[in-house]
Amino acid sequence: MSPIAARMPGQDANLKVNLSGEPDEPTEEPVGELSLTEIDHIAIAVHDLGAAIDWYRDNFGAVVDHREVVDKDGVEEVLLKVADSYIQILTPIREDSPVAKYLEKKGEGLHHIGYRVDDCAAVLEILKANGNKVIDEVPRPGSRGTTVAFVHPKASFGTLIELVQE
Amino acid sequence: MSPIAARMPGQDANLKVNLSGEPDEPTEEPVGELSLTEIDHIAIAVHDLGAAIDWYRDNFGAVVDHREVVDKDGVEEVLLKVADSYIQILTPIREDSPVAKYLEKKGEGLHHIGYRVDDCAAVLEILKANGNKVIDEVPRPGSRGTTVAFVHPKASFGTLIELVQE
Repeated sequence: MSPIAARMPGQDANLKVNLSGEPDEPTEEPVGELSLTEIDHIAIAVHDLGAAIDWYRDNFGAVVDHREVVDKDGVEEVLLKVADSYIQILTPIREDSPVAKYLEKKGEGLHHIGYRVDDCAAVLEILKANGNKVIDEVPRPGSRGTTVAFVHPKASFGTLIELVQE
Repeated sequence: MSPIAARMPGQDANLKVNLSGEPDEPTEEPVGELSLTEIDHIAIAVHDLGAAIDWYRDNFGAVVDHREVVDKDGVEEVLLKVADSYIQILTPIREDSPVAKYLEKKGEGLHHIGYRVDDCAAVLEILKANGNKVIDEVPRPGSRGTTVAFVHPKASFGTLIELVQE
């Protein structure tokens, strides 16, 4: 994968606001290869994994595709497959889990977004080279045999981002 | 689309916790047709749309596929296409926008998840029939010509869900 080209001076993403309500035509040109190949998963933190599984089944017919305890992260997760993406439902398995702290502080809800990439290390290096704060300095094993790295939400508009390489 | 079958009494999604760290085999059977066809989008609320566009371009090579002011919702949004899904970045265009209130209360971050469905009205009816609180009692126009309905986060584990029919 090629590193993403630096933005050219003078390029301005602050396009004019269109108040007409009509769709704008896109006006920006790519400056490098898109490194995101799929929304790998959206992760939802809950107190009761069984209740959330029931809810997704009863309302959308979604079923568990994969279930795993990720001991390092102190969570149990299930994956519900939607096309080539997953809904990931997480619950803490011990009190010192980051997800336990998240639930205590913020309550149930959207926890992070997983972006699928072909080369986790390469994308992580671009993020670091661009001065972004990361949680994982190098890729590490994730669930279902993936290689992952988390980017700090301070880097990315309050959004905890996980890079996922299958 | 067939309505999703009611869950059989005695079916229990609270499977045993697997502490081995090894993946579990899925153990649940579908009880109805999966109504979710794609993760349509994940929506991120930000203060500065241009800065967020720059960040996604500089770090991931992502570019704006669609840009629109949704006056009814008081937001301007951009869509960055990833496979068949979108990263939606939202910013309020006036102070009484729900997204303005969200930013004030919770700060920047993941705002909602859009699930793509073939028949928004049918899925909404299932949710309502199952006793879920909804924000839109009937489907309404969304951005880029879609038909949408929002489900209340109290119904769905703190997650604001948008059903999106293309």
